[in-house]
Amino acid sequence: MATYYIGVDLGGTNIKIGCFDADINLIEKTSVPTGAEMGPEVVADRIVASARELLTESGVSLDDVAGVGIGTPGPANYADGIVIKSTNMPKFKNTPLRDLIGKNGLGRPAILENDANVACWGEFAVGAGRNVTDMIFFTLGTGIGGGVVSNGDLVRGAGGNAAELGHVIIYPGGRKCNCGQRGCVEAYGSANSTAARAVDAIRAGGESTLKAVLDKKGDLTSKDVYEHSDAGDELAREITEGTAEALALMCVNMLHTTEPAKIVFTGGMIAAGDSLLSRIKHHFKQLVWTLKEEPLEICYATLGEDTGIIGAAALAEHAGKQGKLT
Amino acid sequence: MATYYIGVDLGGTNIKIGCFDADINLIEKTSVPTGAEMGPEVVADRIVASARELLTESGVSLDDVAGVGIGTPGPANYADGIVIKSTNMPKFKNTPLRDLIGKNGLGRPAILENDANVACWGEFAVGAGRNVTDMIFFTLGTGIGGGVVSNGDLVRGAGGNAAELGHVIIYPGGRKCNCGQRGCVEAYGSANSTAARAVDAIRAGGESTLKAVLDKKGDLTSKDVYEHSDAGDELAREITEGTAEALALMCVNMLHTTEPAKIVFTGGMIAAGDSLLSRIKHHFKQLVWTLKEEPLEICYATLGEDTGIIGAAALAEHAGKQGKLT
Repeated sequence: MATYYIGVDLGGTNIKIGCFDADINLIEKTSVPTGAEMGPEVVADRIVASARELLTESGVSLDDVAGVGIGTPGPANYADGIVIKSTNMPKFKNTPLRDLIGKNGLGRPAILENDANVACWGEFAVGAGRNVTDMIFFTLGTGIGGGVVSNGDLVRGAGGNAAELGHVIIYPGGRKCNCGQRGCVEAYGSANSTAARAVDAIRAGGESTLKAVLDKKGDLTSKDVYEHSDAGDELAREITEGTAEALALMCVNMLHTTEPAKIVFTGGMIAAGDSLLSRIKHHFKQLVWTLKEEPLEICYATLGEDTGIIGAAALAEHAGKQGKLT
Repeated sequence: MATYYIGVDLGGTNIKIGCFDADINLIEKTSVPTGAEMGPEVVADRIVASARELLTESGVSLDDVAGVGIGTPGPANYADGIVIKSTNMPKFKNTPLRDLIGKNGLGRPAILENDANVACWGEFAVGAGRNVTDMIFFTLGTGIGGGVVSNGDLVRGAGGNAAELGHVIIYPGGRKCNCGQRGCVEAYGSANSTAARAVDAIRAGGESTLKAVLDKKGDLTSKDVYEHSDAGDELAREITEGTAEALALMCVNMLHTTEPAKIVFTGGMIAAGDSLLSRIKHHFKQLVWTLKEEPLEICYATLGEDTGIIGAAALAEHAGKQGKLT
């Protein structure tokens, strides 16, 4: 009986592949350079060859693979398994990646999903959200990625582009976002915007121990800002409070939209640890309604660096159960 | 074969009941006073008796009724069909209304849902949203009610309280909302808050043709504000622009959350007609990202006064298909 799953995490630099059992326990994993410059067919062939090798190492027969999950950056037509284009892989244009890897590659059914949804699904299925049916997921990095799980399923939207949560407007008329809007949560709550707001505040004349770092390096990271905030710098503290408040506003707004039982944060900035999470929770309590007590849990993700392959395999398992693997 | 549906719209003053065929075409309808002061058992008995009469008038046998849909104001435990309490029906306390009407009343399976979700489902199933899979629904009245349909199903949330869209915060630190939060869309975009903002602006010294109305009546309605706006009063125009902008912000934020194909507005304030809808669309275009063209359609509801019974019957039909009638 086919009860193993392959999870593929396709990035611009590396491809990670994992072989999983029916309970989405990792058996073996591997990583190979993407080689995107050689074009999508070569990339797909590389994924197929690496997956075959991985199965051999894992002692799993290809016939026992029930499905292949593939996570990829958008934009894509996920329903048809086609990558429309890719910033990091310019030769990918309307590439039918799902079928190149799946039925025409490994000869097994597959599903393609955007990487934020894949990571969200991993946390939902076997990570921080494994005991709930409704969850919101935020990745705090360069920008803010999102995922929405409602009643045990991903919310994909009318065109497969739901959960662009970084572009929910929280401060109308506020900071300009790369997307063309103003006041997006991404312009306040991401790692990059946390650093950028600190740079702006110092350049506007604010006093801070960060000034010496900025003068020396010419720029700041969110890590710098959190370190100086934790060390007692007032300007850095105000900036990190602003980050937490922006994210707490999103928690309130998501509560009133899809009513998650858990909101899960991940991404580079969660290295800030308790000084971020406890402040988000604090601001959430300040901002949320008083009509009734809300049991919403706000927490960090638990899966770590293998989230992409775990989520992809878990998604293949879920799609298989729904008869949605192609 | 059981192919008829009964839709019940339970309000504090009147109960509306409709008998529908399998395609949710209305056969007959009736309306009786709620008589809430006599307690929930009497109300349930009245609904059961009225539904029986209605079936007789419709020439439909009770055996041919596949399901009963009941819309009621919250808070309720919808999964178990229990009304927890009701502002307009104070004798309702942990009342198992679904079973009183359904299996223990008419002897037919039933479903209980909050009235905003029922209206949303009616528009989705047979109204403005009948040709889409993802929709957002707003009722603009005293407050703002909401409904979210994702991938062909209502989003109910972890505790059955999703889609409290009136309490999404759009202006942090802004106007106080009855819920205890500040800056909720309900405090800007509802009929009541449109009138209240006009009153506040005039009392703060603003010049307006509305001042004479306020002096005479002691208060304003949103209808007054739209009439004076349409007649060229500048203060009234600014207030109605503010209403449209608040609602447009919600459209942007819902687009990036569940990516609806349609956003449907209903409620008393849509009597304002094109002067509201065209301004919402205008502000949406101003506010939304430029990354890609968004095919989102923003429109008014189409079902009118029978929405409650239509939605309840349509929801019973849908729940029946899913095996979720009890």
